[in-house]
Amino acid sequence: MGLVANIFTQPKIKELIGDSAIGHNRYSTTGASFLRNAQPIRVESHLGPVALAHNGNLVNSWDIRNRLERDGSIFQTTIDSEVIVHLMAKSHKTDLLEALCESLSQVRGAYSLLVLTPRYLIAVRDPNGFRPLVMGKRSDGAIVFASETCAFDITETEYVRDVEPGEMVVIDHTGVRSLYPFPKAKPSLCIFEYIYFARPDSYIFEESVYKVRKSLGRQLARVMPVEADVVIPVPDSANIAALGYSEESGIPYQSGLVRSHYIGRTFIEPDQKIRDFGAKIKYNVVKEVVNGKRVVIIDDSVMRGTTSRKIIKMIRNAGAKEIHFRVSAPPTVSPCYYGIDIPTHKELIASTHSIDEIQKYLRVDTLAYLTLDTMHKAVEGHKGGGFCDACFTSNYPVEFQDHAGNQKSLFTEYATEE
Amino acid sequence: MGLVANIFTQPKIKELIGDSAIGHNRYSTTGASFLRNAQPIRVESHLGPVALAHNGNLVNSWDIRNRLERDGSIFQTTIDSEVIVHLMAKSHKTDLLEALCESLSQVRGAYSLLVLTPRYLIAVRDPNGFRPLVMGKRSDGAIVFASETCAFDITETEYVRDVEPGEMVVIDHTGVRSLYPFPKAKPSLCIFEYIYFARPDSYIFEESVYKVRKSLGRQLARVMPVEADVVIPVPDSANIAALGYSEESGIPYQSGLVRSHYIGRTFIEPDQKIRDFGAKIKYNVVKEVVNGKRVVIIDDSVMRGTTSRKIIKMIRNAGAKEIHFRVSAPPTVSPCYYGIDIPTHKELIASTHSIDEIQKYLRVDTLAYLTLDTMHKAVEGHKGGGFCDACFTSNYPVEFQDHAGNQKSLFTEYATEE
Amino acid sequence: MGLVANIFTQPKIKELIGDSAIGHNRYSTTGASFLRNAQPIRVESHLGPVALAHNGNLVNSWDIRNRLERDGSIFQTTIDSEVIVHLMAKSHKTDLLEALCESLSQVRGAYSLLVLTPRYLIAVRDPNGFRPLVMGKRSDGAIVFASETCAFDITETEYVRDVEPGEMVVIDHTGVRSLYPFPKAKPSLCIFEYIYFARPDSYIFEESVYKVRKSLGRQLARVMPVEADVVIPVPDSANIAALGYSEESGIPYQSGLVRSHYIGRTFIEPDQKIRDFGAKIKYNVVKEVVNGKRVVIIDDSVMRGTTSRKIIKMIRNAGAKEIHFRVSAPPTVSPCYYGIDIPTHKELIASTHSIDEIQKYLRVDTLAYLTLDTMHKAVEGHKGGGFCDACFTSNYPVEFQDHAGNQKSLFTEYATEE
Amino acid sequence: MGLVANIFTQPKIKELIGDSAIGHNRYSTTGASFLRNAQPIRVESHLGPVALAHNGNLVNSWDIRNRLERDGSIFQTTIDSEVIVHLMAKSHKTDLLEALCESLSQVRGAYSLLVLTPRYLIAVRDPNGFRPLVMGKRSDGAIVFASETCAFDITETEYVRDVEPGEMVVIDHTGVRSLYPFPKAKPSLCIFEYIYFARPDSYIFEESVYKVRKSLGRQLARVMPVEADVVIPVPDSANIAALGYSEESGIPYQSGLVRSHYIGRTFIEPDQKIRDFGAKIKYNVVKEVVNGKRVVIIDDSVMRGTTSRKIIKMIRNAGAKEIHFRVSAPPTVSPCYYGIDIPTHKELIASTHSIDEIQKYLRVDTLAYLTLDTMHKAVEGHKGGGFCDACFTSNYPVEFQDHAGNQKSLFTEYATEE
Repeated sequence: MGLVANIFTQPKIKELIGDSAIGHNRYSTTGASFLRNAQPIRVESHLGPVALAHNGNLVNSWDIRNRLERDGSIFQTTIDSEVIVHLMAKSHKTDLLEALCESLSQVRGAYSLLVLTPRYLIAVRDPNGFRPLVMGKRSDGAIVFASETCAFDITETEYVRDVEPGEMVVIDHTGVRSLYPFPKAKPSLCIFEYIYFARPDSYIFEESVYKVRKSLGRQLARVMPVEADVVIPVPDSANIAALGYSEESGIPYQSGLVRSHYIGRTFIEPDQKIRDFGAKIKYNVVKEVVNGKRVVIIDDSVMRGTTSRKIIKMIRNAGAKEIHFRVSAPPTVSPCYYGIDIPTHKELIASTHSIDEIQKYLRVDTLAYLTLDTMHKAVEGHKGGGFCDACFTSNYPVEFQDHAGNQKSLFTEYATEE
Repeated sequence: MGLVANIFTQPKIKELIGDSAIGHNRYSTTGASFLRNAQPIRVESHLGPVALAHNGNLVNSWDIRNRLERDGSIFQTTIDSEVIVHLMAKSHKTDLLEALCESLSQVRGAYSLLVLTPRYLIAVRDPNGFRPLVMGKRSDGAIVFASETCAFDITETEYVRDVEPGEMVVIDHTGVRSLYPFPKAKPSLCIFEYIYFARPDSYIFEESVYKVRKSLGRQLARVMPVEADVVIPVPDSANIAALGYSEESGIPYQSGLVRSHYIGRTFIEPDQKIRDFGAKIKYNVVKEVVNGKRVVIIDDSVMRGTTSRKIIKMIRNAGAKEIHFRVSAPPTVSPCYYGIDIPTHKELIASTHSIDEIQKYLRVDTLAYLTLDTMHKAVEGHKGGGFCDACFTSNYPVEFQDHAGNQKSLFTEYATEE
Repeated sequence: MGLVANIFTQPKIKELIGDSAIGHNRYSTTGASFLRNAQPIRVESHLGPVALAHNGNLVNSWDIRNRLERDGSIFQTTIDSEVIVHLMAKSHKTDLLEALCESLSQVRGAYSLLVLTPRYLIAVRDPNGFRPLVMGKRSDGAIVFASETCAFDITETEYVRDVEPGEMVVIDHTGVRSLYPFPKAKPSLCIFEYIYFARPDSYIFEESVYKVRKSLGRQLARVMPVEADVVIPVPDSANIAALGYSEESGIPYQSGLVRSHYIGRTFIEPDQKIRDFGAKIKYNVVKEVVNGKRVVIIDDSVMRGTTSRKIIKMIRNAGAKEIHFRVSAPPTVSPCYYGIDIPTHKELIASTHSIDEIQKYLRVDTLAYLTLDTMHKAVEGHKGGGFCDACFTSNYPVEFQDHAGNQKSLFTEYATEE
Repeated sequence: MGLVANIFTQPKIKELIGDSAIGHNRYSTTGASFLRNAQPIRVESHLGPVALAHNGNLVNSWDIRNRLERDGSIFQTTIDSEVIVHLMAKSHKTDLLEALCESLSQVRGAYSLLVLTPRYLIAVRDPNGFRPLVMGKRSDGAIVFASETCAFDITETEYVRDVEPGEMVVIDHTGVRSLYPFPKAKPSLCIFEYIYFARPDSYIFEESVYKVRKSLGRQLARVMPVEADVVIPVPDSANIAALGYSEESGIPYQSGLVRSHYIGRTFIEPDQKIRDFGAKIKYNVVKEVVNGKRVVIIDDSVMRGTTSRKIIKMIRNAGAKEIHFRVSAPPTVSPCYYGIDIPTHKELIASTHSIDEIQKYLRVDTLAYLTLDTMHKAVEGHKGGGFCDACFTSNYPVEFQDHAGNQKSLFTEYATEE
């Protein structure tokens, strides 16, 4: 529990022996943040010891879990990923790879997985490829997997390629090989990674996040222009979109909001009270930038609207003459069941309110979102294929059953900022 | 991990809500002392949440575990008790009590169990009744279970009676009732509880430990007399036997060894190095008592003989003229498979050496043990019935299979002092 | 020891009673980072209890300390500020304010002080006014002092004015009053606060840091122009200067370097090894921004040059065609004795190398600094009066004696980034 | 803060370099138990670094402290021992030994001191020799000082002799020498060390504690006999006196009270609440021993009487027919100003109540104390000379001024059990 650098100190790392390792950085949300829910999951079964790290969410884990429990399985955690190892343990296959394939053929949803056993290191991406998974190589020949390429940069690893949707990369003493054990499916890469989640210095789905994010800002300026004196981002995730907006519109970009460096993304804090406190002291306005000005604020998403409303009030108090709010994505109308913790329909302001109503709630002079079409234009020609845009359209590529509260507790592994 | 008083501080206890609770104080041995091996075990299954605290050891848990793992069960701990909850989870009974009985009918060995569910508090003692389990009642009507009655004294609980061998006491909102779901077996209460393990202020198996322990000392003086100036115990577990020896023999009792109060029984320390250090500074001799004297040392058992040898050397260096070592039990020749961590045959000095050889190793003038018959005389007329004396006779009341190393790691939940 | 939010948790804050408080956030450097060196210093003397928080460095503390020790004083810390309380304790004045004035009349150098006693809250700024000190007021009437106004914004405090150089503001139950107990001196506000140290959303010395910092960037573009495709800052401290450079030059501003949010300013980490690790993973380059481009990098200072060199190498490896390094301040040639931990002459690359040599060391196509004159132009008309620019000119407003190593350990309370 | 074994772990001890060391084990009482009050005190002054560990209490430290504070000294702790280092720091002697002598010539009261400097290890005992201080030697030639000889036994150190009252033993690279820098005074060894404080396996003041303590029990049986069935001690401090009483009276000794091994002497716990909890669960009665019996309870002292009363109630509830309370010392009527934390006059039950009244309060059938004369008989012929018995007689060998509350906080370094 805590920041990686505080947990894996040099003495601790020196204690780790062996020549392969997997790790997992889990964003906890209130309630689910127990130590025992930390990943990698590590279990022993008739297949021997298996460790598993999972990015994404399964949509039928609740059904499977109920079935397994009726059959006598005992779960150790409340995370959806645990069904994968239970299905493996129940498999009659004695070969671990076969047992893993059998297990994965029963789960549906999003998974970018790393599986470590004494013999294998296995990387798998679900057939839709919802969540990213990249492969790199170090000069000493070591193979490295990560969610984003920025992790390669700091470990002196060269980016090789993405693990493909439906691909299973197996590494053992004989080398590296690829399997494609699943039926093909329509590629459904998460478009929200580009909009908000990934770091701008990463390439995901083989495309620069920075480039896409700037393009989103440019599109926004084109379709939702406004006369103003200054463009300011909600830092840091909207910085690049704001640069794009500024370049396209010609309105100067300024750093009108300062974010405290001692508070990270709010969702890494396990305790709700600390999150609230974080929200309170995270942003401050630079009066010099907005006083007497017509201000365009760029943000990448509006979930509940509460943080946006606070920021807008600060800027108004600092003397802004006009405030125009621009969002570098379409209205977020639906939750994500594949691994991004977007709030429920009830909590999502755009799910239950018209844009006019949101504008009034935020108290801005104008409010505009990117259109769905122009969002897709920003990733046009992308060689990874199709995207999942269910949070904007409610078109879910993989069916799911909603199990009310219970479901929720299994699915909310990731939390967005608001 | 740690002493109860340090873990369950007042603020922590105030956080605990509800009206029933179970706890467990586990003596850890090197290797098995992980946090996840701490009891109570708490799992969720199709029967709902179940917590279980177990005193004793199962002799067929390894076989059951192997079978369950082959069937797809995933174990969370390396403790034998976990098979009980897995067998419950695999049961097709939907009634929890029936599932528990079905599970227990498959395990063999020693178990004094507390099981807590949202609906029930259940206390069960195995048909042989190896390990103690007592029931008490507080003035507010609360029912309390414990291993020894001394726990009742400090919690203002009145001792009611022992849970009987093979009895299952069930408490729910309708009251308290007793079931006897198992076939009857020969009572086999652990005689070693009287000799060493229990506290002298406890009643176990409905008899005063103090009284039995003194009687053992008296028998020892009768059958193994010696001319001497002073009787000293190895504190604190042999104090009462030494008083009995002194009374019967007329040789004055003195506190010739001082034990540091800041070091507890050695086996509660999880780390071997700390245990060694503890052994080193635990005892000191009172020169005034032994200098120029013929000394009888009373101890309750000799396991490896290493601590005894150190103590004897200290007493010799302090000027004792003669040293006579008397043990208030027969030679310990066999390990225990029911929950007392007596060392292996190889390590037990009396298993591999004659009394003459042990006397030479310890460097004492005379060495004598209590005979098996006289030991049994000390508990004669005991209304609980028969005893297990397998550690002295190798007559094991319940068969077991020895699984070499693996077995060991499951069975060494309790460690004796040497 | 640690971040404020981790130390002063809600439960801890609730334990604090009373109606006045002072705190201190000390940047520790290797060696001096003991708990006992933490401020506020709190002592008891014949004047009663006194707590003191000190921003700045005294230049004659070593002499005073030696004299006091020869006279029998015992120091508790190795920080220079402690001489102030010792001088108060030795004073024959029985009035605390007089004793404080007597003490301060003997020390020389930089001090922005808060002193708390059961009766008084006192804020003092040295006659030269080296370090900032601002006064604010909350709607409930509470008076608040801070180094920067950004602290007021998050505590809903209204900025009233700066404490003036040489002013002593005394608050007690009778209200607020101002004393000017010291001879007047030439104002010597630290110009480096504008360049690097303060937050851009603060007003210090009654001027917007953002405005000054942008103006520095604009001046830099005017006097040190270059043809290029993109301007990128070394985040975050050079962001605003880079915006100014971009606006003036017309070369687009991009966020070409990403800084990890989980690592703060390097100097808050007490352990050298963690600092090195921090340096390694703090920055990453956005290949998309620099590949095939002529890049202008803006930084606010170059101390040892080692971090700059690493950043430049990263940008070169990412495919930059040309790299032009621009510094929004003159070359740093001399250490600071008034509270900013600028390295020693020996370590400062600009103190021992020509600009040509630095350019070669950094491996950039061109390198240019702001001139002294243009730097001063950026703060022209500032109503606070004169500035201290000793780190750029070696003109020290207050004399000091250099006491080699010993001196160093007392003076290095603040550490800059490299 | 904590037990030695938990603080000075093997890794910590390995970090300690050098060839001399001093330590201190301080019993904290509520209020004074801050980390900064921990000994050894370590300061730097014009004499260089000095560390000091002090057993005992000074009776004029408050006056000296006031004088020093008026002169400008700043104290770091609230412990009396700190005046010694301040007086050294104020001394004009440049030789450390001379400065220490000058300092000690100004303090009055009890001190057994160890002083460590880069050059010297110094052991000093005050002229009255209130508190013990013994010197030992290891086979490797190392000189060791301790309060009791039991510390030598576990460190394989041979007991050489006591440091004499008024003696200063100085160890440096030239060897060991003795100085007697103070005027001679009447020896006043603390008789309470024999009665309660020291361990029975120690020799203090060159006499066996065990022997004296047993002799006290024998005298008690002689002068305060009673007809009874069983003698039981309040463990562990009264064990030996009870053995003496039993031997002299012929009434059998039994261990009728069991003391939990997981709670040490109550006064080592810093927090009052934990102390109370400790008192509650520390003792339990062995019903078997007292039921239907006439019981003699032996204790070594009665302070407030509250613990005794609780124990007596327990024994009564367990079925004792008669209870006779015998104390192996005279009534404690006065506090100690020399280092044993005996409660104030107001709190001491024997200071304000007659023996009849105490007997009624305790609800015992008879109550008797040892007489002053017979107590002295137990140490007759002791070669150390006279004793301090002020807690029983109010005859204080060294005058003191009582400074009400303030004084108290300086003097209560040691706390007795009740």
